[in-house]
Amino acid sequence: MILILKSNATDEQIEHVLERVEAMGLQHHLSRGTYRTIVGIIGDEEQLREEPLRAIPGVAKVVPVLPPYKLASRDAHPEPSVVDVSGVKIGGGYLGMIAGPCSVEDRDRMFRIAEAVCESGANLFRGGAYKPRTSPYSFQGLGEEGLKLLREVGDKFGLPIVTEVTDPRLVETVAQHADMLQVGARNMQNFALLTEVGRSDRPVLLKRGMSATVNDLLMCAEYILSQGNSQVVLCERGIKGFDSATRNLFDVAAVPLVHSLSHLPIIVDPSHATGRPDLIPSCALAGLAAGADGVHVEVHDCPEVAKSDGQQALLPSQYDELMSQMRQLAQALGKEISPLPEKQF
Amino acid sequence: MILILKSNATDEQIEHVLERVEAMGLQHHLSRGTYRTIVGIIGDEEQLREEPLRAIPGVAKVVPVLPPYKLASRDAHPEPSVVDVSGVKIGGGYLGMIAGPCSVEDRDRMFRIAEAVCESGANLFRGGAYKPRTSPYSFQGLGEEGLKLLREVGDKFGLPIVTEVTDPRLVETVAQHADMLQVGARNMQNFALLTEVGRSDRPVLLKRGMSATVNDLLMCAEYILSQGNSQVVLCERGIKGFDSATRNLFDVAAVPLVHSLSHLPIIVDPSHATGRPDLIPSCALAGLAAGADGVHVEVHDCPEVAKSDGQQALLPSQYDELMSQMRQLAQALGKEISPLPEKQF
Amino acid sequence: MILILKSNATDEQIEHVLERVEAMGLQHHLSRGTYRTIVGIIGDEEQLREEPLRAIPGVAKVVPVLPPYKLASRDAHPEPSVVDVSGVKIGGGYLGMIAGPCSVEDRDRMFRIAEAVCESGANLFRGGAYKPRTSPYSFQGLGEEGLKLLREVGDKFGLPIVTEVTDPRLVETVAQHADMLQVGARNMQNFALLTEVGRSDRPVLLKRGMSATVNDLLMCAEYILSQGNSQVVLCERGIKGFDSATRNLFDVAAVPLVHSLSHLPIIVDPSHATGRPDLIPSCALAGLAAGADGVHVEVHDCPEVAKSDGQQALLPSQYDELMSQMRQLAQALGKEISPLPEKQF
Amino acid sequence: MILILKSNATDEQIEHVLERVEAMGLQHHLSRGTYRTIVGIIGDEEQLREEPLRAIPGVAKVVPVLPPYKLASRDAHPEPSVVDVSGVKIGGGYLGMIAGPCSVEDRDRMFRIAEAVCESGANLFRGGAYKPRTSPYSFQGLGEEGLKLLREVGDKFGLPIVTEVTDPRLVETVAQHADMLQVGARNMQNFALLTEVGRSDRPVLLKRGMSATVNDLLMCAEYILSQGNSQVVLCERGIKGFDSATRNLFDVAAVPLVHSLSHLPIIVDPSHATGRPDLIPSCALAGLAAGADGVHVEVHDCPEVAKSDGQQALLPSQYDELMSQMRQLAQALGKEISPLPEKQF
Repeated sequence: MILILKSNATDEQIEHVLERVEAMGLQHHLSRGTYRTIVGIIGDEEQLREEPLRAIPGVAKVVPVLPPYKLASRDAHPEPSVVDVSGVKIGGGYLGMIAGPCSVEDRDRMFRIAEAVCESGANLFRGGAYKPRTSPYSFQGLGEEGLKLLREVGDKFGLPIVTEVTDPRLVETVAQHADMLQVGARNMQNFALLTEVGRSDRPVLLKRGMSATVNDLLMCAEYILSQGNSQVVLCERGIKGFDSATRNLFDVAAVPLVHSLSHLPIIVDPSHATGRPDLIPSCALAGLAAGADGVHVEVHDCPEVAKSDGQQALLPSQYDELMSQMRQLAQALGKEISPLPEKQF
Repeated sequence: MILILKSNATDEQIEHVLERVEAMGLQHHLSRGTYRTIVGIIGDEEQLREEPLRAIPGVAKVVPVLPPYKLASRDAHPEPSVVDVSGVKIGGGYLGMIAGPCSVEDRDRMFRIAEAVCESGANLFRGGAYKPRTSPYSFQGLGEEGLKLLREVGDKFGLPIVTEVTDPRLVETVAQHADMLQVGARNMQNFALLTEVGRSDRPVLLKRGMSATVNDLLMCAEYILSQGNSQVVLCERGIKGFDSATRNLFDVAAVPLVHSLSHLPIIVDPSHATGRPDLIPSCALAGLAAGADGVHVEVHDCPEVAKSDGQQALLPSQYDELMSQMRQLAQALGKEISPLPEKQF
Repeated sequence: MILILKSNATDEQIEHVLERVEAMGLQHHLSRGTYRTIVGIIGDEEQLREEPLRAIPGVAKVVPVLPPYKLASRDAHPEPSVVDVSGVKIGGGYLGMIAGPCSVEDRDRMFRIAEAVCESGANLFRGGAYKPRTSPYSFQGLGEEGLKLLREVGDKFGLPIVTEVTDPRLVETVAQHADMLQVGARNMQNFALLTEVGRSDRPVLLKRGMSATVNDLLMCAEYILSQGNSQVVLCERGIKGFDSATRNLFDVAAVPLVHSLSHLPIIVDPSHATGRPDLIPSCALAGLAAGADGVHVEVHDCPEVAKSDGQQALLPSQYDELMSQMRQLAQALGKEISPLPEKQF
Repeated sequence: MILILKSNATDEQIEHVLERVEAMGLQHHLSRGTYRTIVGIIGDEEQLREEPLRAIPGVAKVVPVLPPYKLASRDAHPEPSVVDVSGVKIGGGYLGMIAGPCSVEDRDRMFRIAEAVCESGANLFRGGAYKPRTSPYSFQGLGEEGLKLLREVGDKFGLPIVTEVTDPRLVETVAQHADMLQVGARNMQNFALLTEVGRSDRPVLLKRGMSATVNDLLMCAEYILSQGNSQVVLCERGIKGFDSATRNLFDVAAVPLVHSLSHLPIIVDPSHATGRPDLIPSCALAGLAAGADGVHVEVHDCPEVAKSDGQQALLPSQYDELMSQMRQLAQALGKEISPLPEKQF
């Protein structure tokens, strides 16, 4: 931690700063420059992070030296982590290909879509049973009934299931039915929820919040890891931008940035990132080329009657074409779409 | 709702669009322009909002005509709402002046700060017992013990208490001790939490999320209102911006914008909006001049030892000076700082 | 300047860094922490700013200690500057009230609007003769004819004239007719233009670019100041934001932030900041309350036929009402609307 | 164009709106909905764009139906354009690979870098002779001397030269020496400059402004096209974002978005988009996978002594490795790196 003092900091203020550092049991290193005085603090930065150093009179700026996360850091774990979702691997060269409708809807439709994406090569099936909708008047999901349907579909096709959990009180229920728990963008900093999924033994798909920096995202992963659950996959799904031509702004550079800072896998979700079926394939390929460990795509067989987000779903035929492009690209990149543990049809 | 069709929409697609509209029991109004065909839909827009109209083949764009919120809308309630927090009024010309430390800390400090801000004229006392911290290793608050201490302080000075609730499971407990429930920026779209505070009989302070539009904020208020709780005060506390000179970007125009769209009161929080004590007074005054129904300021008597956010707290003496400027401005604006129900010292 | 080295920086890399610093004739101060090594550089930071220090192997981060501007800095000039525009003062307690139409239009209209805003108390008249339009097919302004008309209006009412210059080749011509040169937001970083207005003897109104930080804005002021022109007034006119409810995002905190960093006056332009007549008055008042040295408002007597930006213009009657509110607020703030040098009607 | 009227629009206001439309010689189509009245305007939208329709009393919102650009639109030119830069093709399956230092520096260095990137397979050489620097005290480029040096280098290696022009007065001079004129991000809306390069017969590389939407970018291309120069290549180089971990925010979705709206080629510049050598390769590959028509990379043989932007330059060896990855990806995508007209060594 480095403290840059104000240009008009008095000797008494400097003295007080040094005393505060000593009172924390740490060493300091004073450096008087031409214009400013700087205090380097030597010792456990973690301890300092809790202290409101910038509130000490005379301090202009506090410059941390270390990232604030530990378990999520690549320093702590130099090799890329491989997350195992009921036999499907994500990370370390293995790609997780998640597909399915936004919401769980009727039984026949679920089986139809699952069969299609399975044939196209998806290795994880998604669908929302609990939907965080921006309007209280919108369809809120089928709840536990939806979870059971997902489980049935998963068992039929041998596809592990990923579904969102929106409430700490529901983590246990969702974990009984699903193979992977999704924490959505709006709940990325719902720390009560992060703590509960951190106590679960299910892998977690943590989506980046719309105004979250990559550092914020890694801190939220740290919440989950710090509870003992090390199976975390991150997801870039678009952040808030100023161009309304797309639903969100796809920050593809977050992929190599996460890989440089952390050992955790990161996948991309071009469906939410763009909100436009015509842009999804290009962005999916861009994500893979940037090093993503998987791609999450919403697929619906009749978008115009979908109960949510129909306007951004790909048709099964479009997904099939995209999967064949992605398979080819994966090969060129030396990566493998993780095989299903045992395919049953 | 207006549907703008694609320039190359076929007659069959147009026919299909009209059939879909009729199938919903609604009327349409077709208008063929020089370059584009437009379909106006006549009837209950609410019903349409649920339909993925943009997913119908041939549709280029969907333009809603009405705002998606109803109970929060000024159309539904032309007069400004006045929210009553245990006798302190906010809105309709009454200003709520919230002050206190970021976190509830030790007993003596709480009483000291409360006494100071009460003397300066604050009419609501704040303090966090449950803290949504970005690091799992940071101080997480004193919990229920903190709530009890807040209650004691409130009773002593006759100051209603506002404190944050971060978990739907805690709403009942917090409501037992506090006069007003705060939903923080990170939880603005935590719909499970919104639903629970909507079922409570306590007034709610709903802070705007860092990437939320004013429309998003009003939709979240709608969640609370739709559960039967009509006592909602909004809070502009800074949104995500690109200039790191301030912690967040204070969107003062949100104040008149909310007033034009909704009857709900809105206050400003320059402490979180700027994160800099030197900018807080100017922004507090700006907020009032823009029409805000109150000001939320963090105050600490020794910021350099505060357990959270010390670097953005005002000293009691700074708050006192600011309150005297705000009192003068309020008078010039024809507003009144809501008096305490009965002051006890 | 502080260099934070990479955690895995080798001794050879550290040695090379120190040699590079010495080669620049500067002293260094090495500090080996628990996790990272830090090099403080003592001496003229200006000289260092030019050096690509982050490109030296082993360097992770470069932390500057001083702001990159000098002439614009409050350190260099602790008292607030007062800019004199042909007798009208802006800054140091004097308010510049700029009003007029977006574009210079026909003669009668110009005189009508000028008379109205002059009676309401405006002390500077604006109008665009050269318009930077986003479409090549839009009205581009009347050019020199417009300048002459502005001059005539200014002479008639004793109102100094401010108008935009968009091309370095036109600075001399515009300076012949106008009292103050405006550099628009889109040209804030048009360095060729900044250099030319810096060589002019006319005061300059420099508008903040839509994606400019306050630091960027001050650097552009520095360009002008460094050419010898010290008469610079800054203008906050809204930056790019994600909420399309307003045209731009009014960053009112930029006002006290500029005042803390620089001696230059700063005014606000709520017309461009919001793009909505219904929000302009609240934001104008907010700007003044935040400490702005003036307010820039677009006024048109028949917005629906305006040649540009009609949708954001106030009517003369609306401006009159706003001016009376602003006059009252100015008084409460202890400020004075700068009187006209000699009023002629 | 569609006008959505205010919910409380009076019959007189509606009548007035219709009269205004008729006065423009256009037809209208009135549609009274349950809550709102809508007026469709039939006829030349271009003509309407100039009219401040939103300023007509009773009008709540104006919804354009057509994009505001014509020459840049894919409607006007369904096939992708191929821009020819002295024999090197960009667009329509041909990739332009631009490489070189940020600034033109000394002669030996220029030849060294050019030789290296040429061997790696670059087909255009870049270097700044006129530098738009954010500080007036920074190196501003070698000017015409730099242009001559670039020409010499270009002739030696048979590499067409692209260099930035920052001032309308310099367009002719730059065009004498360079094969392609670059308009930088800060000058994207410098309309005087756009007009001059539009009158030149050199192809133009137009970089996206930091706060420009894709629509804004296409409007600036339209400025150039409307002057008669149809040889425009767009460049996504990162926009303003809130995460300071990268210099800018690489908006890779702009690539397919431009391709869906326009026939113009678009390349990506991961050097400016990320500002970090460690992220450049991943983002370069992402850009290509998203469909970019080329990649612009800054290369320097000794970044730590570069006169500008050294911290974001790749070493020639890093560029060589990246080029080999890009070549492989291009092949997988069915694209070709445009060959040099005649290679001379």
